[in-house]
Amino acid sequence: MSRVMVSRAFNPEASVRGELRRDILAKAAEVGYAPDKTARAMATGRTDLVALVVPTLAHPWESQEVDLICQSLQEMALTPVIYRIPNHMADYASLIRVQDYRPALVIAFMDKIMPGTLLPLFGSSPAIYPYFGEEPPEAAGQTVDFLKVEQHEGIRHAIRLFRAAGHREVLYVGGTDYANSDVDRDAAVRAAIGEEGLAFAGRIEGDFDYDTARSAVNGYLTAGGSATAFFAANDVSAFGTLDALRFDQGRRVPEEAAVIGFDNVAQSNWRAYDLTTVSIPLGTRVAAITRMIGARLRNPAIPQQRETVTARLVVRSTA
Amino acid sequence: MSRVMVSRAFNPEASVRGELRRDILAKAAEVGYAPDKTARAMATGRTDLVALVVPTLAHPWESQEVDLICQSLQEMALTPVIYRIPNHMADYASLIRVQDYRPALVIAFMDKIMPGTLLPLFGSSPAIYPYFGEEPPEAAGQTVDFLKVEQHEGIRHAIRLFRAAGHREVLYVGGTDYANSDVDRDAAVRAAIGEEGLAFAGRIEGDFDYDTARSAVNGYLTAGGSATAFFAANDVSAFGTLDALRFDQGRRVPEEAAVIGFDNVAQSNWRAYDLTTVSIPLGTRVAAITRMIGARLRNPAIPQQRETVTARLVVRSTA
Repeated sequence: MSRVMVSRAFNPEASVRGELRRDILAKAAEVGYAPDKTARAMATGRTDLVALVVPTLAHPWESQEVDLICQSLQEMALTPVIYRIPNHMADYASLIRVQDYRPALVIAFMDKIMPGTLLPLFGSSPAIYPYFGEEPPEAAGQTVDFLKVEQHEGIRHAIRLFRAAGHREVLYVGGTDYANSDVDRDAAVRAAIGEEGLAFAGRIEGDFDYDTARSAVNGYLTAGGSATAFFAANDVSAFGTLDALRFDQGRRVPEEAAVIGFDNVAQSNWRAYDLTTVSIPLGTRVAAITRMIGARLRNPAIPQQRETVTARLVVRSTA
Repeated sequence: MSRVMVSRAFNPEASVRGELRRDILAKAAEVGYAPDKTARAMATGRTDLVALVVPTLAHPWESQEVDLICQSLQEMALTPVIYRIPNHMADYASLIRVQDYRPALVIAFMDKIMPGTLLPLFGSSPAIYPYFGEEPPEAAGQTVDFLKVEQHEGIRHAIRLFRAAGHREVLYVGGTDYANSDVDRDAAVRAAIGEEGLAFAGRIEGDFDYDTARSAVNGYLTAGGSATAFFAANDVSAFGTLDALRFDQGRRVPEEAAVIGFDNVAQSNWRAYDLTTVSIPLGTRVAAITRMIGARLRNPAIPQQRETVTARLVVRSTA
């Protein structure tokens, strides 16, 4: 086996037959051989680390997306590094020291951190930036590829489903104002309610959280709130909404109250919830991110990339 | 501000007042200063990366534990790197290249990979190894600290609860034979059933998975299985068991059939499930791991560390 071929097998950007690369890497692991990546990083100015910036790994949506991304990165011989920045954390800058390792790429699953903020945190590493709503302002000197999730159409179908079932008044169980995903979702819900000629009962704060949403919905209904249709900012807060309606308030769903969530996490298909929800097609989204990673790393000089994924209503039994 | 103090603030092992360190790091981020970690790694032979080896991030237990560990690591100025090795993956060795970065530490949340296997994969980096059941064999040349989860007593209380409610026959909805956690759980269930004088109805394969468990329980009952008490290898397969009993088979829980899970993930407290389960106290477990990380990194030469966390029955409404 030639030195050149072994070296190519360890270089994710070099073209080597998949099977041959696997054999070489397996053999190398067996004999304990590995190229010194810190030395290589000194020479090339890049590691094969990819920084993932996420608000949490504990919630279903984030954990299911990050899991698939880690799988994709590993298949590309890249190594994921986690930066966990809770939505409400103010002084996150001191936490991020990954620029020290010169990551090959940054994926910012966190629309609280604007593209312009990535440059001081991650240096010149290129970034992939999934977002909702308006495209964030570009940052001078920062290479950013954008992935948009278009969610207005899916939300319009959700509100239309409420109207078709005879509901007249819709409550929005909001996420958090730290997330642009929720800012855009809120706007889409209000717009669709107007277009469908329904009444907007207002917004209560669910914080994307089961307990917070459940207790906010209980507070709303106990105070005499009259909405019968509930749109929640994500599936987990929709589960809290459903349990408040069924178990705390004794309402039959969907006969007396209807609930629609957002995300389509694995749990929304669990029979006890069987949630109607607006789905971000996770496989499609991860495939788009994977394509952008591959293209950017093969040739860092390509023009800015832009892709769009469209959210779609998935009808189950809660609306 | 002295150069020495700045250098100390960036060194997680140097003692600096928490507030002062935060101020220095924030200021450094503001002006874009960072010590070059790849250069430091060349000089010291270690990075501040910590490798986390996990079967998945998509499932509730793993995602909730890894989230807390990432938080702890970041507070210690360490950076988590993910190695995602599915339980059924055979050729994982070629995936693990983190030894190239000389991680400060490896945490193997994956009892399929024996301590002896860590050495060729991660070189001389010390490892923390959570496990269930028998302490795994030590590996020559590998520094391994062990964290045991003692689960027999909690499982005995679960089986006793079945007996107290009048159940005579217990089915085990098993996990996977790739996980020693499940091998030990299976043994504990059988032993407790014997001690409590109940009948063991056998083991069906739930693979720690909602759909697999739900369909296995449906298969068991459709074929005339007579057990009325179901112990599931984890909470997610207990949710599948519950939904099979209630929605597919029309059994009332806990009146006609009782279900107990394992883990006590956040979802087990959701009202639609409200699951009785054997809890691994996650906070206690993460605190123990954090203590071991701190002690091992402060002084790599300390003797092998061993801690134990005890699982406890948490009674809710399914048994």
